Amino acid sequence: MYNLLKGKKGIIFGALNDKSIAWKVAERAHEEGAKFVLTNTPVAMRLGEVEELAAKCDTIVIPADATNVKDIENLFQQSIAFLDGKIDFVLHSIGMSPNVRKKRSYDDLDYEYFHKTMDISAISFHKVMQVAKKMDVINEWGSVLALSYIAAQRTLFEYNDMADAKAALESIARSFGYIYGREKKVRVNTISQSPTRTTAGSGVKGIDGLIDFTERMSPLGNASADECANFCITLFSDLTKKVTMQNLFHDGGFSNMGMSQQAMLQYNKSFNELDHDKKTE
Amino acid sequence: MYNLLKGKKGIIFGALNDKSIAWKVAERAHEEGAKFVLTNTPVAMRLGEVEELAAKCDTIVIPADATNVKDIENLFQQSIAFLDGKIDFVLHSIGMSPNVRKKRSYDDLDYEYFHKTMDISAISFHKVMQVAKKMDVINEWGSVLALSYIAAQRTLFEYNDMADAKAALESIARSFGYIYGREKKVRVNTISQSPTRTTAGSGVKGIDGLIDFTERMSPLGNASADECANFCITLFSDLTKKVTMQNLFHDGGFSNMGMSQQAMLQYNKSFNELDHDKKTE
Amino acid sequence: MYNLLKGKKGIIFGALNDKSIAWKVAERAHEEGAKFVLTNTPVAMRLGEVEELAAKCDTIVIPADATNVKDIENLFQQSIAFLDGKIDFVLHSIGMSPNVRKKRSYDDLDYEYFHKTMDISAISFHKVMQVAKKMDVINEWGSVLALSYIAAQRTLFEYNDMADAKAALESIARSFGYIYGREKKVRVNTISQSPTRTTAGSGVKGIDGLIDFTERMSPLGNASADECANFCITLFSDLTKKVTMQNLFHDGGFSNMGMSQQAMLQYNKSFNELDHDKKTE
Amino acid sequence: MYNLLKGKKGIIFGALNDKSIAWKVAERAHEEGAKFVLTNTPVAMRLGEVEELAAKCDTIVIPADATNVKDIENLFQQSIAFLDGKIDFVLHSIGMSPNVRKKRSYDDLDYEYFHKTMDISAISFHKVMQVAKKMDVINEWGSVLALSYIAAQRTLFEYNDMADAKAALESIARSFGYIYGREKKVRVNTISQSPTRTTAGSGVKGIDGLIDFTERMSPLGNASADECANFCITLFSDLTKKVTMQNLFHDGGFSNMGMSQQAMLQYNKSFNELDHDKKTE
Repeated sequence: MYNLLKGKKGIIFGALNDKSIAWKVAERAHEEGAKFVLTNTPVAMRLGEVEELAAKCDTIVIPADATNVKDIENLFQQSIAFLDGKIDFVLHSIGMSPNVRKKRSYDDLDYEYFHKTMDISAISFHKVMQVAKKMDVINEWGSVLALSYIAAQRTLFEYNDMADAKAALESIARSFGYIYGREKKVRVNTISQSPTRTTAGSGVKGIDGLIDFTERMSPLGNASADECANFCITLFSDLTKKVTMQNLFHDGGFSNMGMSQQAMLQYNKSFNELDHDKKTE
Repeated sequence: MYNLLKGKKGIIFGALNDKSIAWKVAERAHEEGAKFVLTNTPVAMRLGEVEELAAKCDTIVIPADATNVKDIENLFQQSIAFLDGKIDFVLHSIGMSPNVRKKRSYDDLDYEYFHKTMDISAISFHKVMQVAKKMDVINEWGSVLALSYIAAQRTLFEYNDMADAKAALESIARSFGYIYGREKKVRVNTISQSPTRTTAGSGVKGIDGLIDFTERMSPLGNASADECANFCITLFSDLTKKVTMQNLFHDGGFSNMGMSQQAMLQYNKSFNELDHDKKTE
Repeated sequence: MYNLLKGKKGIIFGALNDKSIAWKVAERAHEEGAKFVLTNTPVAMRLGEVEELAAKCDTIVIPADATNVKDIENLFQQSIAFLDGKIDFVLHSIGMSPNVRKKRSYDDLDYEYFHKTMDISAISFHKVMQVAKKMDVINEWGSVLALSYIAAQRTLFEYNDMADAKAALESIARSFGYIYGREKKVRVNTISQSPTRTTAGSGVKGIDGLIDFTERMSPLGNASADECANFCITLFSDLTKKVTMQNLFHDGGFSNMGMSQQAMLQYNKSFNELDHDKKTE
Repeated sequence: MYNLLKGKKGIIFGALNDKSIAWKVAERAHEEGAKFVLTNTPVAMRLGEVEELAAKCDTIVIPADATNVKDIENLFQQSIAFLDGKIDFVLHSIGMSPNVRKKRSYDDLDYEYFHKTMDISAISFHKVMQVAKKMDVINEWGSVLALSYIAAQRTLFEYNDMADAKAALESIARSFGYIYGREKKVRVNTISQSPTRTTAGSGVKGIDGLIDFTERMSPLGNASADECANFCITLFSDLTKKVTMQNLFHDGGFSNMGMSQQAMLQYNKSFNELDHDKKTE
């Protein structure tokens, strides 16, 4: 719509289906004039509809496991060939916890799983950047972005070891952002997005109650995947060149709310119920 | 109980009645061997039972309006005479918003009132320290403490302009803490305490629902005034000499919670009620 | 360049001369298709070249003292008439400390001045929003932005009571952002900008050493006024609708740096000098 | 000196020699009347003088690798037997990065090493708590503490992947603090300590320049290991029962400083040198 990414080239990790934030980012990046490659794990490619998205965006999907350095090397090599030039932006929208999947509670973690959560959800971000920097495939003033969640700062029950992975992810953004900025002028940030009903997000137990709560707590309501995509576009554009090492909350104001009138009203209804029950006894 | 404040001298602002945090701090400081002076505004002295507290703690009450530099000068002069020496600790437990009292909503503030809120709840803290430093009445390694609230970081409906005053209060702790530390080795901190049913706290509309929510959100429950007093004692003691310019959360964990199981369960009951109502229609 | 603000209407406070961030924002907003009114105090209008800017941007200057509610009312009334419609964005780039001007150190503040610092640099932001909301002059999904500085979080010597004012300013953005978001879908944010050699910034003592330090600390270097203007444009655009109540660091990474290699190298040279002196003795 | 830990039982991880913070904590805990067990890895036990410390504190050393669940189980079992009862406090003072040791730069990390850094410096803290909770060896209102560093929030060159480990460590304190608080009233915190010339700290390249800088930045100067031990005692005592899930800065004010007069003066000398050199040319 604005040609904000005209002439820019990118790689988008993590589009699975049309609920994915990465999917929305791809659609919007395409609209804004970017050329990019999609990538996901071979398993995700079988489960999802990413080929469909590729067709829509005139591009290809290159399978890669973001925890595998060789895969990332191959991805960059092929991407550069397909895009005919170096990359200007990267979206990392990857996260998975085997402990969550296997319903291990946080006080009964499997430690191999914990390392996998870390590897997939945090260290993969480091791997992508380390390989990119070694291969020198990102242009000066390029923009690297990962999706995070407020669990990195505040504990949410059932979010489990993903909280620690998100904390590590945001730290990696700072640590690598310093190096990449200093040496190549590449900026690195994370977006801390409202809870979103993606396929990944839906896996979190009790997500509905939480989404209702954050909706009522946030003066502007929860941010949608579409809105997140718009925000990502600004961070890939040339208008945000000096924003780096930041975690940016995109959440309708939730992160800075202590208690809203609407959430309190709803919460207080829970006691009316009890009163009601008592009366009917 | 531990003689943690043996030989230490102090001034405690803001004890009104036995619900006040300052009252509890006075009781505990007395138990820990401190000698101190109590102070409050003439109005508060008429309303409260501070003379009773003074008797219990073998001390006197010196009336002073903490927004009045002359009063503060007089307070320090008399305190030093009574205590027979310089001061080691100060507690600032002062806050009031005329806008809250007069039920002016935050989008309909009276600006003279707003300045009064700032003056009473934040700038008074600066005045106390500036006068103390000019008169050189605080010993090296002294400890100055003010009570704050998480509204300084996160918006709570109805907390109104007190939120901005608390943000300014915490900033003043940092700004003056730098100067006072550098020049006199005096440390300055704020404690961000759980919502507490003090006479002041009770004035905040809807405090009951909020206190229930924070109780269920906090893994250790809300911190009481008694517990806050214990924490204050540690910060006045010689064991925390290098803690300065900090805002310390004393809240059973609330500040770092996103959502607890107990609060979510309670919140979700509010919907059961609706379902219940629907069924009975 | 992108038509990001096509059809949007705004008010820009605080353009003085071509070093002002507000000046750059006006130029960029004009390029992006916005129509807006410029405003500043009568004094600033005499000192500066804001009429020149108005001519360049096909607009007018309406004098207003942002601490004066009547002036703000008049400003909005005239602006709406001139712009032929409600407003979509507001930039608040206002700050001044009489204590700094009169060289009162932070432990020797004049308290009338302190209130003036607060009034001009923080409460004026509340006044602008309260009047706007009462007059209902901002469109839904409008964007209100104020310029802040990291002194709100971390003490910088000589920044004086402006630090406390910036802390209050950021708090006001949260407090009013909640109300304005809830009721009118208007978002409110602050940008925490690198130290910038504006006319205002140059007044801060020792700004050169500080700017050198932050330049070497920041992986991308300090952010310029031009770059800040670009970032402001994204926050006025429709691409950031769910960003609210935030303080956004635009500083080349400075805010999340503990120590950079370049700053450390420079710092360590200060000791080489001493060694050098010793050798020559 | 105050009997603050009279009757309390604990386990202290990480004492190596008399420069260790854990060593100082052991000495102070002994003075305050606590009974505790010391533990370290078999390798550290050979390198250090921990047996000497044990003799001084009338206790034993039980070797344990904190990354090994079996070792931790054995440690708790033996400790409980030796102490004749459940534990009231735990100090985790453990951190090591093979990447730092092997001089791998942050953009050339070995990923097996990275996982080891995480395992030793962060996940070991989870393991200690998970095992403790499963074995139910910590009393209600017990206190668990780990040592952290500001690199968790702000990037320091050469601190490398330890920054990400410290971020994960602090997140684990929050995540487990929620669970442990909710179910057993046990509190979990981290202390973010000034850079300290311990044997571990000395391994960080360029530590001297950094320590000089933080000394001049902090109004009270850097916090020493002895002072840190005092602060730890308050957090093990009954006076801080409602402090949990927090990261507490113990750093003489450094964390909230943007720039001090002393550091700026020193920094500016680095340019005088250049001027000096120019003059002599």
